[in-house]
Amino acid sequence: MNRTDAARRTHGGKPTHGEPMIDRVFALLRAFSDTSPALTVPELSERSGVPLSTTYRLVSRLAAWGALEQRDDGRYAVGLGLLEIASLAPRGHGLRRVAMPYLSDLVEATRQHVLLAVREEHEAVLVERLSHHEAAPVHYRVGGRMPLHSTGVGLVLLAYAEQETQEQILSRRQTRLPEHEPVDVTALRATLAEVRRDGLAELHRGSPQPVLAVAGPVRDADERVVASLSVLVPDGSVPARSLAPAVRAACRAVSRALGSPSAGAPRTHAR
Amino acid sequence: MNRTDAARRTHGGKPTHGEPMIDRVFALLRAFSDTSPALTVPELSERSGVPLSTTYRLVSRLAAWGALEQRDDGRYAVGLGLLEIASLAPRGHGLRRVAMPYLSDLVEATRQHVLLAVREEHEAVLVERLSHHEAAPVHYRVGGRMPLHSTGVGLVLLAYAEQETQEQILSRRQTRLPEHEPVDVTALRATLAEVRRDGLAELHRGSPQPVLAVAGPVRDADERVVASLSVLVPDGSVPARSLAPAVRAACRAVSRALGSPSAGAPRTHAR
Repeated sequence: MNRTDAARRTHGGKPTHGEPMIDRVFALLRAFSDTSPALTVPELSERSGVPLSTTYRLVSRLAAWGALEQRDDGRYAVGLGLLEIASLAPRGHGLRRVAMPYLSDLVEATRQHVLLAVREEHEAVLVERLSHHEAAPVHYRVGGRMPLHSTGVGLVLLAYAEQETQEQILSRRQTRLPEHEPVDVTALRATLAEVRRDGLAELHRGSPQPVLAVAGPVRDADERVVASLSVLVPDGSVPARSLAPAVRAACRAVSRALGSPSAGAPRTHAR
Repeated sequence: MNRTDAARRTHGGKPTHGEPMIDRVFALLRAFSDTSPALTVPELSERSGVPLSTTYRLVSRLAAWGALEQRDDGRYAVGLGLLEIASLAPRGHGLRRVAMPYLSDLVEATRQHVLLAVREEHEAVLVERLSHHEAAPVHYRVGGRMPLHSTGVGLVLLAYAEQETQEQILSRRQTRLPEHEPVDVTALRATLAEVRRDGLAELHRGSPQPVLAVAGPVRDADERVVASLSVLVPDGSVPARSLAPAVRAACRAVSRALGSPSAGAPRTHAR
């Protein structure tokens, strides 16, 4: 069982595990979304399933810690206090800090979008997105989740996941797809094998706009694939082949900065 | 009393206000720092003042929600689950998303560092930092706090804060300085008046390296100063005068994107 399932089971104000307050706090915090960044206390209660009086109490305490902020209109939004803590996440801003100069290079070179993502259970989480002004708008946002099987960075992260994780995802995909078109698991397996062989994923996606993603793996000092970065361009604008060298070079540069020996970093400890 | 004081009073495992669990959770989360991004459970307990057995229980529940992640060496670090929530903070990534293209322009134009910060009580919080490769390294990190009186963005945020907040800060500065050199409050008042007059702050700082910051205000649709952005260059490399137009233009562009009528945005509602 993954952590999301474990955590979600306690949504809806049904406390378990002896720490109902933590579950309620996260149910409240997760009630916010990109489309609902500010909510009233009754809305928070309604969405989280936490009783109204408890919601009032918890919201006031969360605001005292800066995890929530009250706006002029009385609604609450996620506060900067949470960003201060979250920015210490090694897989978030830690990784981002190392990768940023190389991501900037890639944006300048391609004048499009560059994504940096890591795997969190069965999804990819976007750690950074840089976009050139001339690039067509896309909807990916930092901190947002993306499917593994239908994004460039996702395919890379899936291709290099442990066997067990891959099998779990491949066996679930058939029934759990958010889109209507079914995924051909055999074709997906072949794609993953290609990604491992080439060290690069190419993905053409038809909707909402035709997009080409070229993604590669980022490795750490233990040669584990810890992230993926990709370039996103309007499909048909340039051949994937012409983007591959820039993506490979950026992946190698970030991997080296993370200490990956295969990317040219000095070997610091024996394995 | 500001929120930090309110929150800190409950540190050290002395629960108050009827929500001791939330206070303990934040005491645990705030035990992490830039220099200690990963901690063992006993270290977490020690630093937060939360009893060891409670720490074990809370850490396990926080990990289930992805707010903490256990590393291979057994230590815990802040998890991506927190970044997913924190990225919804309107004053964090919300502001950042609007400002990003203009910040990138400024980095390209100056080949140095660009900072974007907001005020949180009596300090500035860094929401974004973009740095050109050619720029000398600086220590500011996203999510980190900076003093108001000794940084460019801080002076701007202080200059435009409400009178009451300004007086609180000016009256505390004399005794609360982290550095050893005393702040001349009269001189600081004069500086703040200049910042308001010019709509720009210039700050020369001698240590650790001689740095020049040129900062300006970012306004929202209600013409409130909600953020400040600055360029940071090695002092002596260029005159502040030559950076002013680029900083002013970027401030104006971000303010316009936020709907500020004085920056040329269409007036959407009467005041």
